[in-house]
This record gives sequence, structure tokens and C-alpha cells, in this order.
Amino acid sequence: MTELVSIRQRLIPPQGKGHTSSARVPNAWYVACLSTDLGQAPKAVTVLGIPLVLFRGADGSPSAVLDRCPHRNVPLSIGRVVDGELECAYHGWRFSSAGRCTRVPGLCDQEERKGRSVSAWPCREQQGLVWVYGEPGETPECAPYEFPNVDDSRYHTVYDVVEGQGSVHAVAENALDVPHTAFLHGGLFRKDGERRPIEVVVRRWHDRVEAQYIGEERPKGLVGAILAPGGGTVEHYDRFILPCVVEVEYRLSEKSHIIVSTALTPIDDFRTLLFAVVCFRLPLPGWLVTPFIRPIARRIFAQDAKILTAQSQAIERFGGEQFVSTELDALGPHIRKLLRDAERGIITPGDKPLERRFQMLV
Amino acid sequence: MTELVSIRQRLIPPQGKGHTSSARVPNAWYVACLSTDLGQAPKAVTVLGIPLVLFRGADGSPSAVLDRCPHRNVPLSIGRVVDGELECAYHGWRFSSAGRCTRVPGLCDQEERKGRSVSAWPCREQQGLVWVYGEPGETPECAPYEFPNVDDSRYHTVYDVVEGQGSVHAVAENALDVPHTAFLHGGLFRKDGERRPIEVVVRRWHDRVEAQYIGEERPKGLVGAILAPGGGTVEHYDRFILPCVVEVEYRLSEKSHIIVSTALTPIDDFRTLLFAVVCFRLPLPGWLVTPFIRPIARRIFAQDAKILTAQSQAIERFGGEQFVSTELDALGPHIRKLLRDAERGIITPGDKPLERRFQMLV
Amino acid sequence: MTELVSIRQRLIPPQGKGHTSSARVPNAWYVACLSTDLGQAPKAVTVLGIPLVLFRGADGSPSAVLDRCPHRNVPLSIGRVVDGELECAYHGWRFSSAGRCTRVPGLCDQEERKGRSVSAWPCREQQGLVWVYGEPGETPECAPYEFPNVDDSRYHTVYDVVEGQGSVHAVAENALDVPHTAFLHGGLFRKDGERRPIEVVVRRWHDRVEAQYIGEERPKGLVGAILAPGGGTVEHYDRFILPCVVEVEYRLSEKSHIIVSTALTPIDDFRTLLFAVVCFRLPLPGWLVTPFIRPIARRIFAQDAKILTAQSQAIERFGGEQFVSTELDALGPHIRKLLRDAERGIITPGDKPLERRFQMLV
Repeated sequence: MTELVSIRQRLIPPQGKGHTSSARVPNAWYVACLSTDLGQAPKAVTVLGIPLVLFRGADGSPSAVLDRCPHRNVPLSIGRVVDGELECAYHGWRFSSAGRCTRVPGLCDQEERKGRSVSAWPCREQQGLVWVYGEPGETPECAPYEFPNVDDSRYHTVYDVVEGQGSVHAVAENALDVPHTAFLHGGLFRKDGERRPIEVVVRRWHDRVEAQYIGEERPKGLVGAILAPGGGTVEHYDRFILPCVVEVEYRLSEKSHIIVSTALTPIDDFRTLLFAVVCFRLPLPGWLVTPFIRPIARRIFAQDAKILTAQSQAIERFGGEQFVSTELDALGPHIRKLLRDAERGIITPGDKPLERRFQMLV
Repeated sequence: MTELVSIRQRLIPPQGKGHTSSARVPNAWYVACLSTDLGQAPKAVTVLGIPLVLFRGADGSPSAVLDRCPHRNVPLSIGRVVDGELECAYHGWRFSSAGRCTRVPGLCDQEERKGRSVSAWPCREQQGLVWVYGEPGETPECAPYEFPNVDDSRYHTVYDVVEGQGSVHAVAENALDVPHTAFLHGGLFRKDGERRPIEVVVRRWHDRVEAQYIGEERPKGLVGAILAPGGGTVEHYDRFILPCVVEVEYRLSEKSHIIVSTALTPIDDFRTLLFAVVCFRLPLPGWLVTPFIRPIARRIFAQDAKILTAQSQAIERFGGEQFVSTELDALGPHIRKLLRDAERGIITPGDKPLERRFQMLV
Repeated sequence: MTELVSIRQRLIPPQGKGHTSSARVPNAWYVACLSTDLGQAPKAVTVLGIPLVLFRGADGSPSAVLDRCPHRNVPLSIGRVVDGELECAYHGWRFSSAGRCTRVPGLCDQEERKGRSVSAWPCREQQGLVWVYGEPGETPECAPYEFPNVDDSRYHTVYDVVEGQGSVHAVAENALDVPHTAFLHGGLFRKDGERRPIEVVVRRWHDRVEAQYIGEERPKGLVGAILAPGGGTVEHYDRFILPCVVEVEYRLSEKSHIIVSTALTPIDDFRTLLFAVVCFRLPLPGWLVTPFIRPIARRIFAQDAKILTAQSQAIERFGGEQFVSTELDALGPHIRKLLRDAERGIITPGDKPLERRFQMLV
């Protein structure tokens, strides 16, 4: 474990000059890849700056070990899987799911030596996603996040994965931000024209924060037409759940309900993987809607990705963030506080959420 | 202003290891772009390491503000200009020519808050060029440099802009250096063959230095044939004027006179923009000469650019400059002294110039 | 010389964070290029982090000087050779084989000045290779390494040069490592299947280490079929000779003998040039074998290069090496000790080699 502390220290440079919203919360589960993206071959992933390799054991269950052969430090991810064990491409050393070295080809004395093993990270497959824990060692008691409604047969689910430049905070704030939609996604969601006030209620618990939008009209444009062909007001919640889940929920009736959840995985301080889980129940048949989900989501995200990249480059160029917020930044500052507290290990559960109300022109 | 001092400190790293001729003279005007290159869209420029965005107000006059939205730090240059105001692409915040935030879309209380404004740099349009001052804040009393003869109707003027790798000093010395022309531009200017001595007089004032070449023959090759079809000796001056203007003047008669002025703008310590202002009066009609100016100038500069890049890369690789000069380096060491003194704020006006004479074989 | 110490210090950064096997042994000869690769034009090479330029004098013998004009620091390698002297492309300064400045075009007083010269490195041409010494100054008493059998008319010699990512140690260990061949080069050399034990004897002297393989069968696959069409056991030695030569020797009979020597030149800590000298005597006619040598060698090296790159990137990513060895790593740890001792100047000649024996399954 001492070795791993030092790996982390060497791999993750001290947080950059200036002030940034990057937070490092290792004692938590993160999505490593879609289940469908882990097949026969080993797969390299980087979580919180640590290079890992995923592979499936003989029983098909996934494992994650440090992506470095202890012998000559070649990445194990360029090797292959043989009989459920990971084989290094250089000298053929083999490793079990637990990271134990099971074979050194050519060696007469195959007695096990501790230094030949490789550290393993807790790994679990759930709801179509492969999760890894942020710290190596024993599997922790807590379980990965469960996405609501995914297991409900009345709902359809579409998965996707994209990469965004920016910290988990920047990506989460962007995903849950209402005011930018009229500009960045003008036409797809809202438009910058005549506006009327709606009420926003923000509630923060010890491990999550949500914004409820009261009195909001049906979203305009293409997305709105699919979500609620009949118009009307919507029930709309945006949520962030520590340390890595963002959730946008729209409900128009019992039969028209969509939850876009996204698990954010920090590759490093300034790059984030987004695993989107779009779960919906609509008046339209699922087979009709499903083909449109991914193209629409990708089109929206392409616009966000462009802004996130520009933002991230400017922050890097200026040597840190200098944000000025207004009350319209309903969740960003709360997400930041939650991540900062989690990073420092300060999580104080309480019964009642902190609540704040304000008006927004939409 | 304190914020801007800190921006400068963070943006401009301490001068590199080793010894370089880069100088930082912020209290002066620099050309930001050609007037014709600033239209309806905002334009990103970097001056002295600071990212700025230029845009035209409702009256068409140019402004320059820091290229970073105070809200979420997205570059304002990827936004657009609406009614003479600059609009951020992310959330639509708008800024006046003075950098004042005039609109936060969606916000009920639009009362002005100081933190929402963006720093503005003095900006002025003059003789077909947009100039910015090197420091933000109030417009200084001094005016941008006026190029000679540009406003004289008997002269024709051609503008061009190119980028060179190298400090302002390296580019200025190259532009005003006679001995390299026989090698780098062999055939276009002079040739390395039979040589005869001419006299060079160097005069340095507190804010400029010039070299006068006495007894020089008409330049050989194509350039000379255009400049002085009738042959004869030429009146030739090379000048550097603090902090950023180089000037090469050839006069053959009252009716044959060419001044190539170049305003040098430091993008950062090692990259320089060259704004060339070629102003001439020749026995030939202007419409006949004008089309040749830019292609010839670009051909010459392409050869210089190649050498400047190689020089700059070698200096970076060796961690600094180690120059050895001879008396042939008529202006380089003086330019360096002027820039260094200006950087330190030491400018001591005097009546008489420092004068030095020597012979050069050309 | 003081200047050169400081050049080295500025050019070669302190060894990186973490633990690496890079060693810096400057007081030795290194191959700079193949004789056939140095023609009329100057040639840039980098040895031990120092940029040098090679050129041939009027008598055709090679010289090596620092690749930086003392005047304005332009690389001399982009210039040309005139009458056996090196001419800078910028102002035409010329330099002799010894680095003396012989001409400053345009200057009336051509008296020699010390500051105008450029440092020269000892340079020698031998056995089809151009060698430079790792330190500038006087030619040392020791001579470059002589490759065995190259001058024996019964042998044929094929030269080649390739670049590998990785320290001299990593490349040398890879070149002399037997166990990886069954995996990385499976089919070309050995295969990972049924194995039987052979004996390995390792002997280390003060300046070299060798491994002798006793009882080894004829190598399987294509290479073996060429080496020993009649089968049988082979005499096989792998050797490392300080500071830069690796040698693989196979002997099947008096008439079937192949020595693959490779001179390793450190470009910097993590990039190495491999100058391969394949010298052989076979029952087959040389003209029949020669065309196959280079394609086979390049195919093998392409596989090694891929692993060396992956290894090098992982080491860089993890901030240093963390190797775990077994007795199968017959030479690597010894090579490392020899290089480390040479770097520190500790070379203690002794009569008897250190000897170690073990069994390996091949």
C-alpha cells in the first residue's frame, strides 16, 4: 500500500498554479467503461491519473490491475488474456484477477514471490457498466451508484460515452446549467428572446444537491417536441450526487418521464469521461425514440465539448480559474463545495437540506 | 489593476534560463492588427503574452479587452458582436467597449457589479492599423508611432503582416542587418564576391539608433533594378525606434524614395508579429510597382523566417543566447541596449547622439 | 572547457524524478553515423544530449563541432561545406575542422579572435563508421572499439542504423535478452511451448559481461534455418562491452559463424541510436545471404522497438523505473552495474571474472 501511495504521489502532480476546481476523491466508485467495451482483449483506462488495465477472468467477471508489468514496466494492456489471466507481451509473465503472478516462463523455480505481483483495484459490473474503486486493495463495503429506473421494464435505456476536456466540476456544472442552453444550444432547447420568471429551489444535502424548476414551460424546439408532444408545464430537477453523478430529470406525466444520468470519471484533473445513461418512458414507442437519443445527445454534447475545451484552455493559459458567479449559477458553487469537502473527507450528514429560492427569467 | 499585475505575472513566466535578448516594454503602443483584418467578428490577439480580444463598437471604433469572460473564463473571442457589444458564447453575458458588463441573460436583478466587468486596454486606429497599449487602463498621453510619408499623396503604401519566431530584438536585428543579405538573400540583394569598402556611421539617441551607409552602390539584383533603374549611389539608412519600429530607407533621387517600416509586436518572448508598411515613390507608376511589393517582401521574409526559426530553436535548446559580435553588427547590440534600458525604465534624453564610424566590405 | 561544462549542464537536465537506468559516460567513443551517411553536406547528430555537426574536411576526413554558430547561434548544420570548411547559412562565417573561425565576410580586420571559434569533438573514421568522443578537446589516447572479424576477408559484413526509444541500458538489455524471444519474436526465434533446461554461465569483468549458453539447440524458425541448415547444438555468447557495445555470437562450426554487434549511441537519456554490424561466415554464399540480413534484422527490431517505446513511455509516465528481476535476467542487472560504475568513474580491473551459473528452460 505504501508503494501505491507513492505511485499516486508520483503520477498525480501537485495541483497546478492558480486556483482550480479540480477535486480528487479517491475513496469512491467510478465507471471505467461500458460493459460492451470490455471483450476478450485487455483494455487500458486511466482513473484519477492512475493507468489501469481491465480484463475479464475465466468466469467473465472484470478485474482491474495497475497497467505496468512489475518485471520490466511494460504496460500489461498491450498484452493478451490467456485462460482468464493477463499475459505480458514482453516476457510472457502471467497475472490472475487478483494481480498475483502465476507464471514466469523459462524460470525453473516458480515459487511465488511477493514483488512479482501487481496491485489490483476493486472492480464490479453493474447495470451495463464496469466500475472501479478509486483506491487499490480490499473491496469496500459501499456499492457503486444505482441508476434509477434502469431496471424497470417500462423504461428504455440508451448508453453512450464521450470524453470532455475539463475537471469533473466544470463538466458537472455544464451538464446541470440551465442559463447556457439558450445560447450554446439555441434552438435545440431554449431561445434567447422573450422571457418570463420561474422559481428555482436549490436544496443541498451532505452528499448531493438538486435544483427544482417550478412553473417551467415545455422545453422549446426539437427536444421538447419529443419529450412532451402535448405541451404543458414540466416537473424538472437537476441533481449532482457525490462524487461523480449528474442527473437531469423531466417528468410531464406518469407516462412521460426521462432521466439523463451521467457518471463522470476523472481521467486526470483536466479530462473527464462522461458515461451517459439515458433512461426514458414516453407516450411514443421505445423503438421509435431510441434511434434519436444518441444523435441528439451527441449533438448537444459536441456544443458543450467545444465550450469546455475553450474554457479549459483559457484556465490553463491563465494559470487557474477566476470565476464570478450570480444566483443563476444554481448548482456550480454547491457542487464545488461538495467536491472540496469530499476531497478533505469532511462529510457531515444532516436531516434537513440547506434550501435557497430565487427567480430566473427563462 | 492589482488583478492585472497578477495576470501579467501568471501569464508571463519569468525570463528563461540562460541569457536572452527578450525585453518586455509594456508602457508603449503596439500594432494589434491591420484595420482590414478587424471586421464584424471579434478577433483574438496576444500582445506581450496577454490574450486580448479586439472588436468594433457601434461607431466602428476598435476596442481591446482581456480575452476571458469573468463568469466562467471562456474566451470572449469565440463569441460575437451584437449592437457594438461583445457577447460571450457560453451564457450570453455582454460587454461594452470599456469592458463593462451590460447584460446577464436570465438574471432578474441586472444591477451593475464591479466583478462582472472585464479589463480594457487603450486601443486606437491610425494609418490603417489598430494599435493597443501594452498596459490596461486609462489611455496614455503619448500617441502611436506615425509612419513617415504614408499620408503624402505622392507616395504609395502597401501593408502586410507575417509572424516570425524570435524575440523583438532578434527580428529587429535581422531586419536591419546588412552583412547577411549576401548569404541568406544572395541574388535578391547583394552577392558574396568582389567587395569594396564603404563607410558606416552609427548614431544612437535615447530612443533610437540609426546606421547610415555612405558610398554604397545601387543594390544589385532584382530589388535594385526596381529601385533605381538608372544606377548610381544610394542614400541608405537603417533605423530602430523604441520600442518596436524598424525602418529601412533608400533614396536615389527626389523621385525615387522607398521606406520599409515594420512595427514589431511581441506575441510573447519568442514570437513576434511583423506589420510591414512599405511606402514608396518611384519613377515607375505606382500601379505597375504595387503588385510586386508583397511577393518580393514575402520571398525575402521567408528566407529570414527560416533562419530566425533555426536561431530561436537553437537558443531554446541551449537554454539561452551566447552571441559574439563584430563591428559589422552595426545595430544589434545598440537595439539590445535600448530595449534593456526601456525595460528598466531608464531613458535619458540627450541632445547629441553617440556616434561611431567603421568600414564594411560590401 | 569551462564553457563546455556549462553547455553540458544546461543541455542535459538533471536526471528525472524517480529511479531510472540511464547512465552518462562521456569519456568514451560513440558511433555518430555510418561512413556512407556523411557526404558533401554537413550532418547534425546529437550525442549525450549535445547537438553536434559532422562534416568532411578537404582531405575527406570527418570532423565534429558544436552545432551552433558563435555569432548568432544559428545551427551550423543548416549551412554548407566550402573547400573543406563549414560555412554558416546566416552570415557566411567559416570554420575549420578544428573549429577555428577562418572568415567573417565583410570584416576589414580578419585577425583571429578566440571567441569566434567553435568547440571541436575528437572524431575518427574506422571500419565504416564515424566515431566521436563524448568530450570536446584533445583526441584521447584510447581508440574506438574494433568489431571482431569485420576485417577478415572470409566474413561478410552488413551495416544498418535504427533509432530506439529507451536508455542505453534498456536497449542493451533487450538486445541481449533470451527469454523475451519466445514471446515478442515467437516464430522468428524460439517458441513458448515444450521447454527443456540448458545451463547459463554469466561472467563479469571490470569492463564487460557475457552470458554463455550451454547445450542450446539450433534456434528454431527462419533465423535458425539460415544459420545452421544441418541442425545440432550451438555455441552462443551474449556480451556487453562498456560503454556501448552489445554482441550476440553464434557459432555452429568453423564455417558457420555469425556475430551481431551493435554500437549504442545515447542521443539523450531516453533515446538511443543502434548501429548494427552484422558479420558472418556461412556455408551459403554471401551474395545469397546478404540481401536477407537487413530485412530480417529490421523485422526483429521493429518488434523490439514497439516494446521499448511502450516501456519507455510507461517509465516516463510513472516517473521512473521499478524493475523486479529473476535469475533469467542474466545480463541486465550486470549491465546496469557496469554503466553506473563507469558513470561514477569506478572501474577496478581484476584478473578473474565474477562467475554465476543457473538453469533456464528454453
